[in-house]
Amino acid sequence: MSGTPIALLTDYGTSDAYVGVLRAVIQEIWPWATILDLCHEVPPQNIMSGAWMLAAACPWLTQDSIVCAVVDPGVGSSRRAVAVETEYLRLVAPDNGLLSLLLAQDPALRAVELDRERWFLRHRCATFDGRDVFAPVAAQLARGVRFEALGSAIDPASLQTLDLPVADYSGETLAARVLHIDRFGNAITTVRAPELVSWRGSATLRVTAAGTHFPFVRTFSDVGVGQPLSYFGSAGNLELAVRGGNCGDIHDLVQGDFVELRRVTSE
Amino acid sequence: MSGTPIALLTDYGTSDAYVGVLRAVIQEIWPWATILDLCHEVPPQNIMSGAWMLAAACPWLTQDSIVCAVVDPGVGSSRRAVAVETEYLRLVAPDNGLLSLLLAQDPALRAVELDRERWFLRHRCATFDGRDVFAPVAAQLARGVRFEALGSAIDPASLQTLDLPVADYSGETLAARVLHIDRFGNAITTVRAPELVSWRGSATLRVTAAGTHFPFVRTFSDVGVGQPLSYFGSAGNLELAVRGGNCGDIHDLVQGDFVELRRVTSE
Amino acid sequence: MSGTPIALLTDYGTSDAYVGVLRAVIQEIWPWATILDLCHEVPPQNIMSGAWMLAAACPWLTQDSIVCAVVDPGVGSSRRAVAVETEYLRLVAPDNGLLSLLLAQDPALRAVELDRERWFLRHRCATFDGRDVFAPVAAQLARGVRFEALGSAIDPASLQTLDLPVADYSGETLAARVLHIDRFGNAITTVRAPELVSWRGSATLRVTAAGTHFPFVRTFSDVGVGQPLSYFGSAGNLELAVRGGNCGDIHDLVQGDFVELRRVTSE
Repeated sequence: MSGTPIALLTDYGTSDAYVGVLRAVIQEIWPWATILDLCHEVPPQNIMSGAWMLAAACPWLTQDSIVCAVVDPGVGSSRRAVAVETEYLRLVAPDNGLLSLLLAQDPALRAVELDRERWFLRHRCATFDGRDVFAPVAAQLARGVRFEALGSAIDPASLQTLDLPVADYSGETLAARVLHIDRFGNAITTVRAPELVSWRGSATLRVTAAGTHFPFVRTFSDVGVGQPLSYFGSAGNLELAVRGGNCGDIHDLVQGDFVELRRVTSE
Repeated sequence: MSGTPIALLTDYGTSDAYVGVLRAVIQEIWPWATILDLCHEVPPQNIMSGAWMLAAACPWLTQDSIVCAVVDPGVGSSRRAVAVETEYLRLVAPDNGLLSLLLAQDPALRAVELDRERWFLRHRCATFDGRDVFAPVAAQLARGVRFEALGSAIDPASLQTLDLPVADYSGETLAARVLHIDRFGNAITTVRAPELVSWRGSATLRVTAAGTHFPFVRTFSDVGVGQPLSYFGSAGNLELAVRGGNCGDIHDLVQGDFVELRRVTSE
Repeated sequence: MSGTPIALLTDYGTSDAYVGVLRAVIQEIWPWATILDLCHEVPPQNIMSGAWMLAAACPWLTQDSIVCAVVDPGVGSSRRAVAVETEYLRLVAPDNGLLSLLLAQDPALRAVELDRERWFLRHRCATFDGRDVFAPVAAQLARGVRFEALGSAIDPASLQTLDLPVADYSGETLAARVLHIDRFGNAITTVRAPELVSWRGSATLRVTAAGTHFPFVRTFSDVGVGQPLSYFGSAGNLELAVRGGNCGDIHDLVQGDFVELRRVTSE
């Protein structure tokens, strides 16, 4: 595992051989790449979940890793295919907001549109740009092709973002959203720890979702088995959970649901 | 990733450690092999889906890759275990039709029955030939053991095929079958692009399945969201889908269902 | 694949990027490690299934492999994090019984509590010791850090075990338990082949579970399609199955169910 790392994130699932094909294409172009699978079970075409996973996982990648991310409901349409360079990483992906939560943390320094067919597989089909465009371009980057050579420069500010409401930290309540429900049923929200800590100040935090109060604690063992809790998750976002249970199922929480945060000053 | 590639395809799933054991067995015999996972979630004992995935994925493997494929409902019975050499690949698998769709594209040049115990794990159990026979033989091939040394030569024409009806391209209609439903709910059919294009000629193609008309287009964005479509998929077969939806679920399509193709000449 | 192997087993699933983060953390600390995924879909927080998979898979690992196992419902509580050395392997895991079935086969020679923060990631959060403790420690071991340097020595006899009834081989009947239901619906039991063979002697074995008789045979093809059977599985335990069917679903068998074994002497 000592070649240039190429980290893969897709919604291709593991019940077909689509990911195997990506791996084979990369290996054919650059056998010395080290493929690192981030996740291939992003819910089908769910750009928000994919964006969340990239934001949560990419900070742990070795510097100068290449990220090939494909959740691409617009494949075959006129949506752009892009490569983006940040201080730490190089990323290739469809331009549909998939990179936006990561880029909010690790800003884009420059970007290109992938418009040079010489870096694609020879016979590009209309429905599998992961195989024909994104994996080959990632492998070419690993092989040493210069970033600028990949395509025409575009303004990083023109990259698509997700249509998420901006949290308003000016009042006593704060409306957050559920970004993703994970395998354990934990609900990851849009609220990040530093902003929340600063907003809360010395007040007590009251977290409510789906009509339930989720006491804000440090970790699972701070509440009884079967009890709801909220806490800062491993990626620094506020999460909702049930100790020893599946919070999403128990409280019927789904992606996009509102979470109300309230500052309570004891008198 | 620069050792001899061994591509794995099984129905062992990822919810147990069976695939981990295959990897460990290969690593023990030949640590320099590069394991490339094609898919481990072939539906249990579903030879047709496995055969489809091999046919779709193997053309993308690096030449001279070794393929270890195990979907093996007959394990422990008298079904043969075989190794097959084609122009591009060497394959080890049970002889039950699993290789047949791939071999229809990349014909078998020679084949052997795996009947030499010296290449197996020492204690072969009755239910896990993946671990005890197929993975060890694949690793021995990667290690440099000659193909002929693996077992007794057999006639490639004696290899099992799938019991699929042969498409009859002589009339105005054509009966295709659904080979596999993928993660996205897309239905891959038995019909290949070159034959279909030549049969259709200048006529319009009308594709019907489960009582629904699937307009034949280039790609998803050629129809509205929620609308059915048919198109040539990434492996060159005719596929049925619903834009932004799960075609298999919406239209109750399952593996083996008939798809009717009709040439319509406008008058 | 020729660096020190680090075998991973977790209940993190593949539908999030948690496993991808483990891989990235290992790669950052020791890029030459060879990561070998045993299984990441241990049912959430199911220590018994995880323990079974480790016992079944680890005997196949290359000697001196490092095993990083994380099924950790007590994360953030006072449960110990440990490293254990056996004749064949080095293991890092929470001390909650996860290693116990493996250690019953391959006994612990020495053990340490992971209490030295210098081997952890710098900012340890309360809910993700896999990322912050276990993966880094496994990578440090692969990098050459001495076992004793990982933490304070503890008595291997103090390691947690699973609360499983000990089989009583003194009578004519034996009460076994279902340890795990695998992807195929096969039910793996607590009974190991050597003990069972010796207990049975020349008597006939009668295996009953959920009111059904599971004839004891060599392999699947010894019974008709749709028929129940019991046999020694690939890891040497007695297993219950239905040929061509999902035994767990058909007979409503779940983890922990009793299986009755009876010696029947023909008169």
